Amino acid sequence: MTALTLTPLQGIPEVRPGDDLAAHILHGLQVTGLRVQDGDVLVVAQKVVSKAEGRYVHLPTVRPGLRARALARLTRKDPRLVELILQESRRVLRAVPGVLIVEHRLGFVCANAGIDHSNVKGDDEWVLLLPENPDASAARLREQMEAATAARLGVLVIDSHGRAWRLGTVGVAIGLSGLPGLADLRGRPDRQGRPLQVTQVAVADELAAAASLVMGQADEGTPVVHVRGFPYGLGEGKLAELLRPEARDLFRGGWVYGG
Amino acid sequence: MTALTLTPLQGIPEVRPGDDLAAHILHGLQVTGLRVQDGDVLVVAQKVVSKAEGRYVHLPTVRPGLRARALARLTRKDPRLVELILQESRRVLRAVPGVLIVEHRLGFVCANAGIDHSNVKGDDEWVLLLPENPDASAARLREQMEAATAARLGVLVIDSHGRAWRLGTVGVAIGLSGLPGLADLRGRPDRQGRPLQVTQVAVADELAAAASLVMGQADEGTPVVHVRGFPYGLGEGKLAELLRPEARDLFRGGWVYGG
Repeated sequence: MTALTLTPLQGIPEVRPGDDLAAHILHGLQVTGLRVQDGDVLVVAQKVVSKAEGRYVHLPTVRPGLRARALARLTRKDPRLVELILQESRRVLRAVPGVLIVEHRLGFVCANAGIDHSNVKGDDEWVLLLPENPDASAARLREQMEAATAARLGVLVIDSHGRAWRLGTVGVAIGLSGLPGLADLRGRPDRQGRPLQVTQVAVADELAAAASLVMGQADEGTPVVHVRGFPYGLGEGKLAELLRPEARDLFRGGWVYGG
Repeated sequence: MTALTLTPLQGIPEVRPGDDLAAHILHGLQVTGLRVQDGDVLVVAQKVVSKAEGRYVHLPTVRPGLRARALARLTRKDPRLVELILQESRRVLRAVPGVLIVEHRLGFVCANAGIDHSNVKGDDEWVLLLPENPDASAARLREQMEAATAARLGVLVIDSHGRAWRLGTVGVAIGLSGLPGLADLRGRPDRQGRPLQVTQVAVADELAAAASLVMGQADEGTPVVHVRGFPYGLGEGKLAELLRPEARDLFRGGWVYGG
């Protein structure tokens, strides 16, 4: 088995709405001195995908409804931001002062519907939503990158999520194309040749965590990571694979509002 | 910023109780053609640490109590295994047919108290517990490896855990020495030089996920991964950093037994 190597791309400029992300990545590969080959994966931070897709909202244009205003009082958040969070979500799972955990319309559970409110335009009055459809964003980018390089590639769009039970954020997959989300180790024999019990590994999330490590969080100069040696090989994959259906989720329901 | 490279070590033999794991790893480094240097991290699968520490239990020696027998009926698990799970746990969080989620005595939440029941001795009557104290296991191994190589190293002991909300297991840290668990990005400026909001990244868990990817699950030939280029640098760390205190955990309490 060969090594897994993750290289952050240098030379990716500040991304603006309408930018051709594939062109930025091709430039970044060149600046970094990398040439992609069949089987490589490109991991892209959600933030630059959202920026290229122009997913900005100007908060003064948002009119918070009754429910948003009540939740904003409870969570001590901006009511306009809470309104957007509700619009981006299927339901609220937990609301306490300072924390709002929702099931995003894309199906995953995260804080604040993944909306970025950290000076996304050098101004506290702008926020940045997640991409409309991160699987589709990944597929488009993959198509462009494969056309430009003639290599068979995977593309993974990642974000950082907090977790139940453990502190700290970790990188997770929110969109993928050309690589599997889960790898099923059902029946792969162990060393003695006996079949193992069923084990499904969230390989796209493991790769997201690995890439997040080299991206860091604050340095927007490295929002794209080149991966060589992904051990599970390319194949079709999508976000939905990684989402636990509610019927199999023991930690989704229960109380919502707390003091 | 340089690349992060993860290389699975070849030549690690089947590990037996009392084995000198450091000697196995030194052998594996040699077989793989790697020489460690300051700042490298060695990631070790829990399973081989537990095996070296002789954490086997022979199920016929276990006498299930009343509570274990009731939980075994509900979860349809072996009552002797359930007795061991209870002995290794602080409390049960969820119990439904086929699933038993506990807060382990070490503080993290996982299924079956991390007890491995998959032919650990080529026999269904033996199981393997987690190391007694994985931080201490990591510290001992680090001390031995540093003495043998004269390099300053980090050592991370990992396991694979399921998660709330998402399908598939991911590698997580259960013991560490010589590297941080969390990296605090509080106040690191963004590109415009404005301070960011507080962000703590679970860098040890991200590294655990990355290493898990190259270890696979079934192939016991690669239970140790050599890491070069860990971007957060070495430092003191421990498991407790990564554990969300109950007061800050919105997804721990609630119902326990289900049908």
